[in-house]
Amino acid sequence: MYSFLNDYSEGAHDRIIDALVRTNHEVTVGYGMDEYSDMAKKRIIDEIGVDADVHFLLGGTQANLCVISYLLKPYEAVIACDTGHINVHEAGSIEATGHKVLPVNNKDGKLTVNDIREVMSLHHNEHMVKPKMVYISNSTEIGSVYTKDELEEIYRYTKENDLYFFIDGARLANAIMAEGSNLTLHDVAVNSDVFYIGGTKNGLLFGEAVIFKDKKLSDSFRYTMKQRGAILAKGRILGVQFNELFKDGLYYEMAKHANSLAMKIQDTLIELNVPLVVKSTTNQIFPVFSHEIIEKMKEKYLFEEWSTIDDKHTAIRFVTSWDTKEEVVDYLINDLKELFK
Amino acid sequence: MYSFLNDYSEGAHDRIIDALVRTNHEVTVGYGMDEYSDMAKKRIIDEIGVDADVHFLLGGTQANLCVISYLLKPYEAVIACDTGHINVHEAGSIEATGHKVLPVNNKDGKLTVNDIREVMSLHHNEHMVKPKMVYISNSTEIGSVYTKDELEEIYRYTKENDLYFFIDGARLANAIMAEGSNLTLHDVAVNSDVFYIGGTKNGLLFGEAVIFKDKKLSDSFRYTMKQRGAILAKGRILGVQFNELFKDGLYYEMAKHANSLAMKIQDTLIELNVPLVVKSTTNQIFPVFSHEIIEKMKEKYLFEEWSTIDDKHTAIRFVTSWDTKEEVVDYLINDLKELFK
Amino acid sequence: MYSFLNDYSEGAHDRIIDALVRTNHEVTVGYGMDEYSDMAKKRIIDEIGVDADVHFLLGGTQANLCVISYLLKPYEAVIACDTGHINVHEAGSIEATGHKVLPVNNKDGKLTVNDIREVMSLHHNEHMVKPKMVYISNSTEIGSVYTKDELEEIYRYTKENDLYFFIDGARLANAIMAEGSNLTLHDVAVNSDVFYIGGTKNGLLFGEAVIFKDKKLSDSFRYTMKQRGAILAKGRILGVQFNELFKDGLYYEMAKHANSLAMKIQDTLIELNVPLVVKSTTNQIFPVFSHEIIEKMKEKYLFEEWSTIDDKHTAIRFVTSWDTKEEVVDYLINDLKELFK
Amino acid sequence: MYSFLNDYSEGAHDRIIDALVRTNHEVTVGYGMDEYSDMAKKRIIDEIGVDADVHFLLGGTQANLCVISYLLKPYEAVIACDTGHINVHEAGSIEATGHKVLPVNNKDGKLTVNDIREVMSLHHNEHMVKPKMVYISNSTEIGSVYTKDELEEIYRYTKENDLYFFIDGARLANAIMAEGSNLTLHDVAVNSDVFYIGGTKNGLLFGEAVIFKDKKLSDSFRYTMKQRGAILAKGRILGVQFNELFKDGLYYEMAKHANSLAMKIQDTLIELNVPLVVKSTTNQIFPVFSHEIIEKMKEKYLFEEWSTIDDKHTAIRFVTSWDTKEEVVDYLINDLKELFK
Repeated sequence: MYSFLNDYSEGAHDRIIDALVRTNHEVTVGYGMDEYSDMAKKRIIDEIGVDADVHFLLGGTQANLCVISYLLKPYEAVIACDTGHINVHEAGSIEATGHKVLPVNNKDGKLTVNDIREVMSLHHNEHMVKPKMVYISNSTEIGSVYTKDELEEIYRYTKENDLYFFIDGARLANAIMAEGSNLTLHDVAVNSDVFYIGGTKNGLLFGEAVIFKDKKLSDSFRYTMKQRGAILAKGRILGVQFNELFKDGLYYEMAKHANSLAMKIQDTLIELNVPLVVKSTTNQIFPVFSHEIIEKMKEKYLFEEWSTIDDKHTAIRFVTSWDTKEEVVDYLINDLKELFK
Repeated sequence: MYSFLNDYSEGAHDRIIDALVRTNHEVTVGYGMDEYSDMAKKRIIDEIGVDADVHFLLGGTQANLCVISYLLKPYEAVIACDTGHINVHEAGSIEATGHKVLPVNNKDGKLTVNDIREVMSLHHNEHMVKPKMVYISNSTEIGSVYTKDELEEIYRYTKENDLYFFIDGARLANAIMAEGSNLTLHDVAVNSDVFYIGGTKNGLLFGEAVIFKDKKLSDSFRYTMKQRGAILAKGRILGVQFNELFKDGLYYEMAKHANSLAMKIQDTLIELNVPLVVKSTTNQIFPVFSHEIIEKMKEKYLFEEWSTIDDKHTAIRFVTSWDTKEEVVDYLINDLKELFK
Repeated sequence: MYSFLNDYSEGAHDRIIDALVRTNHEVTVGYGMDEYSDMAKKRIIDEIGVDADVHFLLGGTQANLCVISYLLKPYEAVIACDTGHINVHEAGSIEATGHKVLPVNNKDGKLTVNDIREVMSLHHNEHMVKPKMVYISNSTEIGSVYTKDELEEIYRYTKENDLYFFIDGARLANAIMAEGSNLTLHDVAVNSDVFYIGGTKNGLLFGEAVIFKDKKLSDSFRYTMKQRGAILAKGRILGVQFNELFKDGLYYEMAKHANSLAMKIQDTLIELNVPLVVKSTTNQIFPVFSHEIIEKMKEKYLFEEWSTIDDKHTAIRFVTSWDTKEEVVDYLINDLKELFK
Repeated sequence: MYSFLNDYSEGAHDRIIDALVRTNHEVTVGYGMDEYSDMAKKRIIDEIGVDADVHFLLGGTQANLCVISYLLKPYEAVIACDTGHINVHEAGSIEATGHKVLPVNNKDGKLTVNDIREVMSLHHNEHMVKPKMVYISNSTEIGSVYTKDELEEIYRYTKENDLYFFIDGARLANAIMAEGSNLTLHDVAVNSDVFYIGGTKNGLLFGEAVIFKDKKLSDSFRYTMKQRGAILAKGRILGVQFNELFKDGLYYEMAKHANSLAMKIQDTLIELNVPLVVKSTTNQIFPVFSHEIIEKMKEKYLFEEWSTIDDKHTAIRFVTSWDTKEEVVDYLINDLKELFK
């Protein structure tokens, strides 16, 4: 079986594993106060070009719930796409910390300033929650990408309206390396209050680097991290990984690899006139297949059935990763050509 | 500098690291539903001799807050030693999930049935919280150990009084391998409702195996795990580690190593008539030193200053680990003999 | 100024006030354990014809948050109309207790079994919350009413799918006394797991009677009440009021008065061809007025502007109460006839 | 039976009831935005001599949980006496909002600057909660009183250490009118960040006036009130009551009445050499009686058994109220004289 199930099916890039092996018996202090964590933070600060406050957490749900519950007061709420990870796929983690997620209908997995404005206009007194944060994912849950312009526009609106802007970057590398993207980590840092650089889905064993642009804002964030079980005793494991990730462009290289293989698949699908839920520029592809085709595909491939289209068709998802082999993609392409011939 | 700072200063045992390297490029499903996690669970079930429900979490604070918030209703509380990790050193993580910790004065870091009975007698109507769980750590936060008899006695009382009994096993291996201990993992499983086997402080990169004896009780535990950010995307990293940990007695061997080196240090201290806060049988030793001695020790050794005794004396903590070198312990012993000569 | 602002603009019905005055200097035990509270509970049990567990709380938001947080486990969620009071107008009170509200698009302020079924089909594993309760208001936030048949159908579905069915009865009397309604309190009790009888909006100073049909389900509810500040020290104030409310049909009489005056207004509006957001059968009426008309109306009347229809029109809300004077309604009717002539 | 059970056994002072009757059919806006609430706030501001922000809540537990959860960040904790109402008798209401109560051993129901200092010294990094508030009750849960000097000293310390100082004034009138007290409402306002004036235990049907000295600090407090179910729809009921309470010294007169009758009882007990748990200066008296005496007393009087002293003795509590009749106190005194003769 060949897997296009997700981008966290394998372990870590060899360079990441090697770095862990190399440093394994060194003695360091715990809880992320070690020199490797410090080095990794410096590399990230250099990379984003902003002197920010960096913290290493273990996963996306944890990063989201820590950031949001840290920044919001009990009666404040976060605006997100209805398809947003925090709204659907984190088991109510934000509500469990006491906060409402205010969902807006998405267009291609994205929200706009108009969506935010409408939510704001409906919340104007203490009988309702107070919207205080905008949350987006880039790339989104369905593989689409916010451009630099779109981020600037949202950020500008949030600053004019006393809102925090938080970018879930679980797949940020894929957004940056997307076909036609002119986005940089610097742009993301400049146009948000807090964001994170996902490692789990881009070649680390696990780990997300949460970055607050305003250090005063985050000066007690480690309290929230501890309280939510998000400080790793052997914190240097995160430091070592992120330190390696930002050497010699490994961070970009892995996402580029994943994206380009996905584009190869998508180009084939387009050529074959297979309908797509959304035209992706990143490592997630969403073709609509008949149930007959899906059954045949299942004999050789692992993939997720994403959403029902009609009685006879379902959208599926192909995901490529930093570790997907080009030859496996080529098998898939040949089989697709055969099936849709 | 030689470190006796804690038992999570190094990475992981070479066998653990090797297992991760060996399996690194394999493709598995995510979220701990993979075959390595299954294999590890089977090994643990075999080892404890009880057909229990096993879940792998990332750290101790996370394990504690997930178990406690999963089992308790909003108005229920957990009884713990005032020195208990959940009461002091987890930044209010239990309260953050809505539950009161009812502290009892400790004796050598431990609580007794009498302590529990007294708390019960003071909580008898809806103006107060309802005590519903007893939490202990074994070995305790100050290195002492509950014997099999003590666990049986507490467990019996909790069953007679409709309480859950939860054992924090962050350093459980050290309790089992303690000098003179006749405790087994089976005893712990039989005499508790839920406990965990700590990996972080016994040679894993990270990871705690939470074990519910009654599978019906835990049938929705993965919801709580997800909601609290405690399901690792690449869950197999935990599976691979715990699978290796319970091969060929590695789990016991590492704790035995740590304990025996600690005993060597403690024996020397006793010989030198250095007062101890508590006579330990595990890998944490608590001598009382003058500030003069402490300053000299600091030139060569890392250790924690534990608690102020008086104007001129402080209790310090020496911790040994699965990776502590015997020669380093011998240096320390020589220096101690020199200092107290 | 004449007020059609809401049904809690006045104090309490004279009989309620008289009962409070009459019993004022009696000495009773506190916290709702007094004989008046007992008498009131017996009257309510007699009225609903089910031997249920009755608790008196102070207001609707409090009743909602106590019931929902008492019944749900941390990862469980409540399904409600997007217009539902708990989803919009309680400042995130449910989320503040840790639970997600799963909103469904409303039709005339109501939800259907199909809506519930769709939510259920989308929530099937631990990456999402677990829907465990259906919440409706009857009469609804926009004055519409669930019939006996509709309640039966929803209740049946919830029982088949292991869901709680909770009816917010802040305006339950208005639903029961609605034009053409065949609903009784007995029907409501039989076709729900928990509901409440609103007093605040039907002639009491304040107070809601929360009724659990299954006494085992509610045996610790007073713990939640205490914890949420919902046990009144002088609980007898609630007992005295509800005891009077259920003497000689006062409960029904007051709602009938409010409803019939509202119908008189609505009939006039229909006669005058004024568009309505929804055709109401209870004490809330929602005509659509031009901004010009609204400005003129404001000179003499208090009412709420409910929602924007277009650039030139807004839906407004007229509410009548147990204490609305028929002559004031007649003034309004005359003025409406004049304005729309 | 004569009751010395508590100070909330009766309804409200006749002047309070009369004010409610008088205003009963007036139409006002809801949620405490009415003119009676405004008038009451102005009276209170005049009385305390500080231009503060005043909010009316329904009861003590509600006031405590709203204030504390409003002011504290998730990782912040409140220091209180171990006997403090929030620590023992509110069913874990503070923890239910996510915050730890840090208890200190009490001396006569009170805490000192030294107690606070010790807690502060033990909490110095993110592994522990961050103490951010000091909570006291005045008069305390056992009838003792903080003097003006004591309040000043605590307040000064809290300001030097960036802590909030919150005074639970459920029985504040009794503290102010205590024998030998020189405390005023002005002193309380000046020497705290937030406090409340209890109405429930001093002649109102219910109600506590929460007062924030710094209006900026409290500018979103109504969001918390709404979210916690603490905004009464007919808010004017609180306004009308507090407005009357602060006319012509009624507030002081009622507490003076209760205190002086309690003193009469305590003087008799002292004269009879009956041991006291604490020498009270307010309306709660704590004599230690033999079980034999208690049984005899129970034939005619209602009172609470407070705490076990030894096998044969128990401390009981006599409470007098604004409505306690002097003749009933005289009966009690005669009976006591007879019993201890």
